Amino acid sequence: MTITRPAPDLRPARPARPAGSDAARLLELLDSRPPAHSLPGPCYTDPALHEADLSLVWQRQWLFVGTVAEVPEAGDFLTVDIGTASVVVLRDDDEQVRALRNVCRHRGSRLVTGSHGCVGNIVCGYHHWTYGTDGRLLHAPQLPPTTDTGALGLRPVHLREVAGLLFVCLADDPPADIEHVARVVAPYVAPHQLGRTKVAAQVDLVEDGNWKLTMENNRECYHCDGHPELRCTFFPTWGLSDDQVPERMRADHDRYLAALADLERRSDELGLPHGLVEDLVDRPLGFRVQREPLDGAGESFSPDGTRLVRRLLGDLPEARLGRLGLHTQPNAWFHFQADHVVTFAALPLAVDRTLVRTTWLVHEDAVEGVDYEVDELTATWRATNEQDAAFVAGTQSGVADPGYLPGPYSEAEEQVEAFVAWYDARVREAVAR
Amino acid sequence: MTITRPAPDLRPARPARPAGSDAARLLELLDSRPPAHSLPGPCYTDPALHEADLSLVWQRQWLFVGTVAEVPEAGDFLTVDIGTASVVVLRDDDEQVRALRNVCRHRGSRLVTGSHGCVGNIVCGYHHWTYGTDGRLLHAPQLPPTTDTGALGLRPVHLREVAGLLFVCLADDPPADIEHVARVVAPYVAPHQLGRTKVAAQVDLVEDGNWKLTMENNRECYHCDGHPELRCTFFPTWGLSDDQVPERMRADHDRYLAALADLERRSDELGLPHGLVEDLVDRPLGFRVQREPLDGAGESFSPDGTRLVRRLLGDLPEARLGRLGLHTQPNAWFHFQADHVVTFAALPLAVDRTLVRTTWLVHEDAVEGVDYEVDELTATWRATNEQDAAFVAGTQSGVADPGYLPGPYSEAEEQVEAFVAWYDARVREAVAR
Amino acid sequence: MTITRPAPDLRPARPARPAGSDAARLLELLDSRPPAHSLPGPCYTDPALHEADLSLVWQRQWLFVGTVAEVPEAGDFLTVDIGTASVVVLRDDDEQVRALRNVCRHRGSRLVTGSHGCVGNIVCGYHHWTYGTDGRLLHAPQLPPTTDTGALGLRPVHLREVAGLLFVCLADDPPADIEHVARVVAPYVAPHQLGRTKVAAQVDLVEDGNWKLTMENNRECYHCDGHPELRCTFFPTWGLSDDQVPERMRADHDRYLAALADLERRSDELGLPHGLVEDLVDRPLGFRVQREPLDGAGESFSPDGTRLVRRLLGDLPEARLGRLGLHTQPNAWFHFQADHVVTFAALPLAVDRTLVRTTWLVHEDAVEGVDYEVDELTATWRATNEQDAAFVAGTQSGVADPGYLPGPYSEAEEQVEAFVAWYDARVREAVAR
Repeated sequence: MTITRPAPDLRPARPARPAGSDAARLLELLDSRPPAHSLPGPCYTDPALHEADLSLVWQRQWLFVGTVAEVPEAGDFLTVDIGTASVVVLRDDDEQVRALRNVCRHRGSRLVTGSHGCVGNIVCGYHHWTYGTDGRLLHAPQLPPTTDTGALGLRPVHLREVAGLLFVCLADDPPADIEHVARVVAPYVAPHQLGRTKVAAQVDLVEDGNWKLTMENNRECYHCDGHPELRCTFFPTWGLSDDQVPERMRADHDRYLAALADLERRSDELGLPHGLVEDLVDRPLGFRVQREPLDGAGESFSPDGTRLVRRLLGDLPEARLGRLGLHTQPNAWFHFQADHVVTFAALPLAVDRTLVRTTWLVHEDAVEGVDYEVDELTATWRATNEQDAAFVAGTQSGVADPGYLPGPYSEAEEQVEAFVAWYDARVREAVAR
Repeated sequence: MTITRPAPDLRPARPARPAGSDAARLLELLDSRPPAHSLPGPCYTDPALHEADLSLVWQRQWLFVGTVAEVPEAGDFLTVDIGTASVVVLRDDDEQVRALRNVCRHRGSRLVTGSHGCVGNIVCGYHHWTYGTDGRLLHAPQLPPTTDTGALGLRPVHLREVAGLLFVCLADDPPADIEHVARVVAPYVAPHQLGRTKVAAQVDLVEDGNWKLTMENNRECYHCDGHPELRCTFFPTWGLSDDQVPERMRADHDRYLAALADLERRSDELGLPHGLVEDLVDRPLGFRVQREPLDGAGESFSPDGTRLVRRLLGDLPEARLGRLGLHTQPNAWFHFQADHVVTFAALPLAVDRTLVRTTWLVHEDAVEGVDYEVDELTATWRATNEQDAAFVAGTQSGVADPGYLPGPYSEAEEQVEAFVAWYDARVREAVAR
Repeated sequence: MTITRPAPDLRPARPARPAGSDAARLLELLDSRPPAHSLPGPCYTDPALHEADLSLVWQRQWLFVGTVAEVPEAGDFLTVDIGTASVVVLRDDDEQVRALRNVCRHRGSRLVTGSHGCVGNIVCGYHHWTYGTDGRLLHAPQLPPTTDTGALGLRPVHLREVAGLLFVCLADDPPADIEHVARVVAPYVAPHQLGRTKVAAQVDLVEDGNWKLTMENNRECYHCDGHPELRCTFFPTWGLSDDQVPERMRADHDRYLAALADLERRSDELGLPHGLVEDLVDRPLGFRVQREPLDGAGESFSPDGTRLVRRLLGDLPEARLGRLGLHTQPNAWFHFQADHVVTFAALPLAVDRTLVRTTWLVHEDAVEGVDYEVDELTATWRATNEQDAAFVAGTQSGVADPGYLPGPYSEAEEQVEAFVAWYDARVREAVAR
């Protein structure tokens, strides 16, 4: 685990503040929300409040943007857009993973394009200003002799790796609690050894909805009847306490409980952490982690639950390890199985458009066509994501309707309330600062 | 004629008010308009003033949305969008036509999609909340036991049927004068017996212009030289008093007057009301109704004026009944012939985009391919609508130009002035309230 | 050289003023710019500040819109869009070139469409109001008898021809200094005799960037390594003083200096003005003019520098006359060679979209397929424009990034600074008025 700090000689990011009136309006809307009800419509549809979200939440919190498997070699980079901001995450010549603003210090041109690539130096295509992979300005022709080129490096962005997961923070002074989260979460994730994985597939899907609708959709399985492929192996009572399970799901839940007990026993034997740790609301980097069983063969997201990749991850001795589920606020969720990992990052494109980037990781030595087929590996979540995109688009349309009224969450939506409560708390903290 | 009232136990619609500054700006623009001149440019182009139109006009007035022919059986529905609001109009199990907000009371998802369909219950696709066709919440899994599900029915919308024409009003307390309008208009429309018609065709056309330009375009025949198909049977001196008819149109107008006298005589014999009633400006549901002759054979909108449908409507004994013309403010116009009816609803999609939904109704027993051909039936108004869409788009472009100045209406545009005066009066009433 | 003045009986253009708060914000941003640095991000991305640009700059300054070659005969017109304003430039029946607002005085419809055409009278397609080519209202049916039709002519726009170049100004009281600029520039341009040219090709290219980025891109050759076709004949040390030329360009520059000396000698022999006159910042119609050599054969923008059109322009006795370069602020640049002319007009479509209209003129007697091939003639600038469009789009994306900071101009970007300083001065003048 390493942490990248910005070089001290570079100018800090400019403070990002919404207009006071927009922040006040957002607080008023949050105040108006009855407990355990969905947010008022403008929170999902008003462009000015979306700008407030970007500055009050997205430019202050730790955001999941990818894994070390996406930047395996020196010079490899990935890019990620957060609103209109673009960040380059790259492995520099010292094998350090860094994050930099993807903006030339000359006249502001984008530097690298495309979601992934590899560079020796970072060369702006416009006037050929050239930066090292550490961001330092190496070459800029015909500058006035008095120019302080040392102050013209690419602006750094805070980056923190947690067991191979890469988080960035656009703030000057990021929340410190990522250290605590890393300490708790890393032992769960580490056995899957992301550093020895490779990207088998990545899909960028644009959902026609506000980012909070994307997240709320992810935080419950109350709608899982709408996911026939996922229902093969995903126990639908996820998020319900025993006394909340409805009668029609009782048999499923009993099967879940039996599988959970068995998984816990075997995890203990293998020394794999599995117990639920949930701290979703109170801390900046809210999270939830637990190893949970899968239905059927219990190994992976295939129709019958058997593994989708012959080669298992890391040194895992067996395939039937269910899924290690991880949620982080505000923008990610993960499933770690014995045979593969799926990561999901939600990234706001506009008030009513959100990118969901889904990445499937397999062992670096797994051979496509021999150990796995990409279509099979990705089938369940490709279908599920498309179904979710339709749910999100339908909800965006409805919450934009003047006839919409916030409605009550069911008992199956406690994690949705946790997400909304987290959002409410972060907005209030940011406005108060 | 039946009226549907909202159930008293449901929460009222939230009040819709534009920002005070937008309303003030709109009034200032209206004040600046010289008499009988077109509106200032921002009235047609400013997104904030369009929001003001939606809240000051569209969410307060009675709007034509369809006919009983579109919802003939229990469970049949149509949907209509008014700005970002969507309304479901459906026939419930008691054969009552109702209107409901098309928004789930849970987290706001759209309920039904598509312009028409048929349902047993209304089931939200997201989490399967289930409503009866009367809007009551029948089933919502896993709600907390204390939830008052009786308060979670779909929000009702006022609906009023007038001789088969369906009007809705989004306000809590709709203008009462629809009762008066119904008393006057129903006797004109009733002989065409919409309850015994069926939809032969419906076309949704998006005009690239503000809704007021769509309405102004409809309210005059000063541009009818641009409608060669319509000119075959539509007398172009429509809206002109005898002394306003220009010399070049004198022969047309004399033919019109002769045809009118003949039509009036025969209408009297058949007991069909025909005289002009015009009350366009002063009342909320401004209207104009008159039975008027068509040129040529005088029966229908065909090239030679002969009927387009062999089977006549209702019990009408003859085909040569011209057209019963009906205008309602703010959003509709109608032509009722002996053989078919055409209805037009204008609905705002954005400040510069307006949906025109055109529907052709024929006798429910008329057989396509035997009694009528759809292409022939719809040819004149399909062509005319496309021509009007081009006029509206060209005007939208021009009124957005800083070089635009409001210009004077001709004597042939008194109905345009009536529409604009109606709009002016309704805005002032709403702001004053 | 003729000047067209508006008829005095027509109403003046309405004053165009941005909201005071937007103007104040723009000034604040301009104040924040360090010397010789690019503009703050919102200047390129904020829609309200773009409206301020339109009213403070585009509706006040002289704008290049085309040449006499585009309107050779009576009734010929071209149209040009400036923001949402459309202007018709046409040759009237007295062979006078005029400019008129392209908006009907009745209800605002666009009058003529398409970039070029020919009319007898200007007839509105909507209600057939008919105007002469001088803008007077000739016919409008059924107007109330009291209507003052003399006051309903098309609103005139100031137009000034400079040696065949057409400039318009939307202000009531245009800057007077076009007279001075015309006196200086006309002798340079006149020998190319635009009045005896024809349009060989015209390309409208939409760049996905703010108009100022388009202009800044044009005002330097610091990026000319990105223009392989142009580099064949365009000396890349353009804009550099001798002591600013970097070592790697020394050989190129020496070749340039030799070619320049040779060109100056021959120009003097032919009586062609050639010396640099630069007055880019202080006057409303900032300009720069100079005859400069081309590389290779020195005749035209072909791969080896030889002429692209066999027939030379006007009475020019030889082909090797390099290029007469002309810049005007805010929106144009020109290259006049012995064999052809290329004109470029930049026109704002939206805050982040700019039209670049490029026109190639050849002698009116040159025969396509015999004297020139259109593909060859246009190859270099079609390719160069596409490359520039990519640079502009990449910069638009970057300056919209909250991570963008204005950066320092190099010594090769003095003309960029001149453009920005001109913009800064015009904004301040307009706000102060």
